[in-house]
Amino acid sequence: MAEDLRELGEFGLIERLTAAAPPAGTGVQIGVGDDCAVIDDGNAQRLLITTDLMAEDVHFLRSTDPRLLGHKLLAVNLSDIAAMGGEPRQAVVSLAIPEGLDASYLDGIYAGLYELAEPHAVDVVGGDTTGSRSGLVLSLTLTGRAAPEQLLTRSGAAAGDEIWVSGTLGDAAAGLAGLGDEPAGADEEFLRQRQLAPTPRIALGRALAASSEVTAALDVSDGLASDLGHLCARSGVGAVVDVDRLPLSGPLTRTMGHGGGAVTLALGGGEDYELCFTARAGAGLAAVAEATGVPLTRIGEISVGRPMGVSWQWEGRAYDPGRLGWDHFRGE
Amino acid sequence: MAEDLRELGEFGLIERLTAAAPPAGTGVQIGVGDDCAVIDDGNAQRLLITTDLMAEDVHFLRSTDPRLLGHKLLAVNLSDIAAMGGEPRQAVVSLAIPEGLDASYLDGIYAGLYELAEPHAVDVVGGDTTGSRSGLVLSLTLTGRAAPEQLLTRSGAAAGDEIWVSGTLGDAAAGLAGLGDEPAGADEEFLRQRQLAPTPRIALGRALAASSEVTAALDVSDGLASDLGHLCARSGVGAVVDVDRLPLSGPLTRTMGHGGGAVTLALGGGEDYELCFTARAGAGLAAVAEATGVPLTRIGEISVGRPMGVSWQWEGRAYDPGRLGWDHFRGE
Repeated sequence: MAEDLRELGEFGLIERLTAAAPPAGTGVQIGVGDDCAVIDDGNAQRLLITTDLMAEDVHFLRSTDPRLLGHKLLAVNLSDIAAMGGEPRQAVVSLAIPEGLDASYLDGIYAGLYELAEPHAVDVVGGDTTGSRSGLVLSLTLTGRAAPEQLLTRSGAAAGDEIWVSGTLGDAAAGLAGLGDEPAGADEEFLRQRQLAPTPRIALGRALAASSEVTAALDVSDGLASDLGHLCARSGVGAVVDVDRLPLSGPLTRTMGHGGGAVTLALGGGEDYELCFTARAGAGLAAVAEATGVPLTRIGEISVGRPMGVSWQWEGRAYDPGRLGWDHFRGE
Repeated sequence: MAEDLRELGEFGLIERLTAAAPPAGTGVQIGVGDDCAVIDDGNAQRLLITTDLMAEDVHFLRSTDPRLLGHKLLAVNLSDIAAMGGEPRQAVVSLAIPEGLDASYLDGIYAGLYELAEPHAVDVVGGDTTGSRSGLVLSLTLTGRAAPEQLLTRSGAAAGDEIWVSGTLGDAAAGLAGLGDEPAGADEEFLRQRQLAPTPRIALGRALAASSEVTAALDVSDGLASDLGHLCARSGVGAVVDVDRLPLSGPLTRTMGHGGGAVTLALGGGEDYELCFTARAGAGLAAVAEATGVPLTRIGEISVGRPMGVSWQWEGRAYDPGRLGWDHFRGE
């Protein structure tokens, strides 16, 4: 059965590989399909598990400061814990190391990892190191904990809920475009930092989890269009998003303008590692924004009686964002 | 600080990267340095975490049956859980997938993974799939559980304890040598299967954990010489091993003879995924061997008043096995 992965796509592949699995055991509350797996292991709190892999020349270039690689490897996993409203706990790290790599490069990766691990009380408790005949590959698995009554999932959104995002969108994608060059000024440096050193929204996730008004959440890793589509699919709902309400940073709009280019990055660029979540209409989230120092923006609502998936509008008119969202096998 | 990884070695690197870590949190009972990390998460049972990574052209060739790859990826992690006396629970799997790989190859990997997961009640609850600009890389993290009073570690061996191993040693290394060719007969096929499809000793690990006579354990992944050295270092003891007592299979001795070649593979070859453990002198382990169907062989004892590390003897005389044990960076 020859099938090209480009045709199947990343999510088609995951669906296919998951469909062949034996039935899950009773301890598995959520398996594949949310930001983390959720395990009921008899503890008062649920066990969360997430994993992300970064490969040279796909996710990073060897010329990148290794501290930033270590930071990002942990940050993207922390972001998954944040999206479930959890607290991170332990990490294991595996490295496939090409011949000739200097040990100090690995020191740098771990320095960046530990710098971010410490404020989040993450313990690096193990791993595996091996040679690589090709590029450098980094894999991290992170556990976390969340109280069952506070757990945020992708599947709780209901018609009439408001859709919110944290921070600003599109910065990381804009920062990626300029990575090859020396930054020309403060705006480019800001965008580049958003790409290289994302801030996981752990405190925000905890605050949202503590609010009884928040119904569903996930992190924006592949791009809002793709990610919000996943939330809708898991919740069995549709969504209408006002594209003109998307939060865009000053550096992004100064670099790209307020037009379609900035919006395309905000919808499709990915890697912002902000949280997208739904909340009951009229939920008072100002206190959460205030307490965490993270701006929150209402961008649309979960729709009634529409087909599943996301409809986009710009100043009240239908808007077609085109095909968006990163897929590792399609390379778009 | 330019330093060559070949000089540092795999365990030198791990020590160096671990030394830079912030102090561990209170929930970490064992971090880096045993077969699994051990977490006290307030549960009646301890949480075990282990991870292993397999890279193309280092651990396997693309021509390998993908079912065997999936089997081995899980088996080597199960072996770490077995070495702690634990029960496996959940796995997450990450793949870096080179362009042009057929989806059916990945179906094969997962088929082999699921085939071994089902009898061990392991749930595959998540993962990450990404592109690779170079080879195929597979990473698996496995959790498990063990009762704190039954946990087997590397650090409990004491002077006078007997040293035991399960099954036979050296087969996997002998099987590797013949991988390129068509197997010539039943013996070569046996050795090849020991390399390609190792049997994790989960039931044996549980039975040893339930015995109050067993004091320390680990799995034989890098080779007995290297692995027993780790056990001695963690326990702060020395060991004397009778090389002439090492359990060698019929296929190995028929292929290699009973001489130094077979012994070198048994001591240094690695990848047998048998258990090496220590037990109080005179411990009755016949019932364990009987109940699990796994032969157990006493090969030596933990020594008193010697330097740390392992001394080898053959029919009562000192034996120098040379430099043994696999190191990914030294390639020997």
